[in-house]
Amino acid sequence: MKPKLQTPLIIVNFKTYLEATGKRAVDLAKAAERARKESCVYIAVAPQFTDLKAVAEAVDIPVYSQHIDSIKPGSSTGHILAEAVKEAGVVGTLINHSERQIKLAEIDAVIKLCKEQEIISCLCTNNPTTSASAAYLCPDIISIEPPELIGTGVAVSKAQPEAVTNTVKKVRKVNNEAVILCGAGISHGEDVAVALKLGTQGVLVASGVVKAKDPYTVLREFCDSVKC
Amino acid sequence: MKPKLQTPLIIVNFKTYLEATGKRAVDLAKAAERARKESCVYIAVAPQFTDLKAVAEAVDIPVYSQHIDSIKPGSSTGHILAEAVKEAGVVGTLINHSERQIKLAEIDAVIKLCKEQEIISCLCTNNPTTSASAAYLCPDIISIEPPELIGTGVAVSKAQPEAVTNTVKKVRKVNNEAVILCGAGISHGEDVAVALKLGTQGVLVASGVVKAKDPYTVLREFCDSVKC
Amino acid sequence: MKPKLQTPLIIVNFKTYLEATGKRAVDLAKAAERARKESCVYIAVAPQFTDLKAVAEAVDIPVYSQHIDSIKPGSSTGHILAEAVKEAGVVGTLINHSERQIKLAEIDAVIKLCKEQEIISCLCTNNPTTSASAAYLCPDIISIEPPELIGTGVAVSKAQPEAVTNTVKKVRKVNNEAVILCGAGISHGEDVAVALKLGTQGVLVASGVVKAKDPYTVLREFCDSVKC
Amino acid sequence: MKPKLQTPLIIVNFKTYLEATGKRAVDLAKAAERARKESCVYIAVAPQFTDLKAVAEAVDIPVYSQHIDSIKPGSSTGHILAEAVKEAGVVGTLINHSERQIKLAEIDAVIKLCKEQEIISCLCTNNPTTSASAAYLCPDIISIEPPELIGTGVAVSKAQPEAVTNTVKKVRKVNNEAVILCGAGISHGEDVAVALKLGTQGVLVASGVVKAKDPYTVLREFCDSVKC
Repeated sequence: MKPKLQTPLIIVNFKTYLEATGKRAVDLAKAAERARKESCVYIAVAPQFTDLKAVAEAVDIPVYSQHIDSIKPGSSTGHILAEAVKEAGVVGTLINHSERQIKLAEIDAVIKLCKEQEIISCLCTNNPTTSASAAYLCPDIISIEPPELIGTGVAVSKAQPEAVTNTVKKVRKVNNEAVILCGAGISHGEDVAVALKLGTQGVLVASGVVKAKDPYTVLREFCDSVKC
Repeated sequence: MKPKLQTPLIIVNFKTYLEATGKRAVDLAKAAERARKESCVYIAVAPQFTDLKAVAEAVDIPVYSQHIDSIKPGSSTGHILAEAVKEAGVVGTLINHSERQIKLAEIDAVIKLCKEQEIISCLCTNNPTTSASAAYLCPDIISIEPPELIGTGVAVSKAQPEAVTNTVKKVRKVNNEAVILCGAGISHGEDVAVALKLGTQGVLVASGVVKAKDPYTVLREFCDSVKC
Repeated sequence: MKPKLQTPLIIVNFKTYLEATGKRAVDLAKAAERARKESCVYIAVAPQFTDLKAVAEAVDIPVYSQHIDSIKPGSSTGHILAEAVKEAGVVGTLINHSERQIKLAEIDAVIKLCKEQEIISCLCTNNPTTSASAAYLCPDIISIEPPELIGTGVAVSKAQPEAVTNTVKKVRKVNNEAVILCGAGISHGEDVAVALKLGTQGVLVASGVVKAKDPYTVLREFCDSVKC
Repeated sequence: MKPKLQTPLIIVNFKTYLEATGKRAVDLAKAAERARKESCVYIAVAPQFTDLKAVAEAVDIPVYSQHIDSIKPGSSTGHILAEAVKEAGVVGTLINHSERQIKLAEIDAVIKLCKEQEIISCLCTNNPTTSASAAYLCPDIISIEPPELIGTGVAVSKAQPEAVTNTVKKVRKVNNEAVILCGAGISHGEDVAVALKLGTQGVLVASGVVKAKDPYTVLREFCDSVKC
């Protein structure tokens, strides 16, 4: 059975930060779990492939993969198999993150693989046009992330509020079901609040949490900014 | 301290076979460990990224990654970090497998990353010329694998014995230290014996073991063919 | 001023066939021009980059590029610049052909480059879902080409008529202006007639024309099958 | 018959600069030809694919392609065919430029294609290790270009003289025939003189010439710095 997708949602992308590798990935996931339990906001974590299983065993919050390849089981050395991340305990996956972009036909194929494997698909896009285009591929989540803002600490919801509202409007014209997240530059509770006010159902965040001195406190601030 | 590289060596590449995913990856690694303990031949296993940690915890034989990206810790969503596979318990890695080829500058960078992280580097090449070229990049292991033979059940040591002896000769001209393996099509004990007779120090094998009804028996046959 | 896009349209993709390289590219383009002048059907040709200028100088029919990179003028050795193909005499370009697929964000960027440079954009897609998704990116032409049929001589309009009608229906829901072509396997006049009957405005053809003994006769047969 | 490779050699890479596109590519090539005729230094030009034929027809100096794909004639839309650049009048090609890097197996395949087609192969590498490795693949020319210096105006021969002498030494150990060029940051006659003094047989230059107010004068300065 496909895992339930609940909102408002914060997905924490661990990227390949040392602060979120190995044992520290588990610690960070536990901090996220603690923040989630004290709030009405849902939090999911996206650790590296090598840490998926240990994190999924350590916490009860949803664990996402950072990528899946458009492959079937077989002769694909060094690739990421949907069945493998699923067995590791994953319930969802990022697709086409700006740091791991794939071809249009591959996006389509991976979303279909996710449906088959009952994995939540979170498709990342870089502007209103590609987001609307992506809406037609029916991912469960669309996360808009202008690449030029990633890692800057300038929130897309602040720097480009019109990009967010445009995206929401364009996506909703063709797709009423997809959860819409807003990524890039999220670092304060206010950024999250603004993102929701602009019509999204949550955020995709990375360095703002992972590289914070106290990720738990940052996530609590994010959650507290949301009225639910 | 860099892990010791011992020969004769059989590396079992799990690829993305379902037979070697998740719980079955651990079982297969245990079968390999059992075969190794009853023989003088060294056996290493290369599971998928998601299974590296569980396999490394379950067995005492060396665990290899199937790939590493030429990245440093940081903003690289969906990539494979040397530090992450190392912390998962890996002692070595395949590089440039014919199903996961990378650019020349990346091969050089990954081998250097491996030296920094004290990971054994096993560089796969596709013919005598690229193998000799690769020898100059000083990987710990060079594994020659003509892509057209992979998965065919026709051993390179039989189909192209001269490719193997040529490679050994060319590599040895510039590099006396690298362990030389011979991959592609290995499925019988005889294939392993011939590979060693041709001057290699072992084999890289995948489907011949992973898709066998009884991988343990196949590996025992491989080991028994070797006099050491 | 943007070149006018007229239908019914046959685009002949020269690929990298020797039969359509260099002097033979010019001859083939002239054969296409002759067929076009004797018919009400419009014909365009898509030679290799190296032949674009000579072909554009030799014939009056529209010349397309086979690909454009999502780059601006500058430090991009070995890439295809929109300004360069334009100056060579090109009026349109294929984008994302199944043999030259690119990332979603690149497709979006190249279509925008085409608008800036007043180049007709012909986006190739591989199934009804990606075609509908592509329609949102507002290319001038959408050409549906199931990769598994390319070069088989089995026309998509015959093998998968429902794929064609589905695509037309889905594309038209969001985009009334794009010209829709149908590619893959077109080799007889009948294939073209069926493609038009299924709601497309033309075809994208390669080996059926390029590798024919007499490309002119084949193109005349294509044109004669169309009532306009 | 394979074209003769003469030294000292300056190859001017036109990249995708607007200053070297279309008609301006021909003008720039003529300026290079004029400088060459007044000097003992050989000059070759590497325009964009779309300009190869017109440039080759306009000048008598050698014309290089910026890239070739490792393909045979056939179904490869949007790729660069050795036979096509050859027929356009090309006598040589850059391979693996830092802005167009390819896989190790592809480098090997393209060098072999060049031998078959009698095209001079100029393999670009990024450091002493990869250069020595590349020497084993037997390209006609090896051009060392540290990517971090490209386009900076800081000459590798000045910034990293030891990288150049190291490369020369390492390459010469295994390959006595390859012409060695030194690229990146060449902008003054002195840079060229130093490059030759360090043991190279010439330079690969781009912006220093292409973006100069008067490319002819810059090339003359380059040539005059050389005693031959």
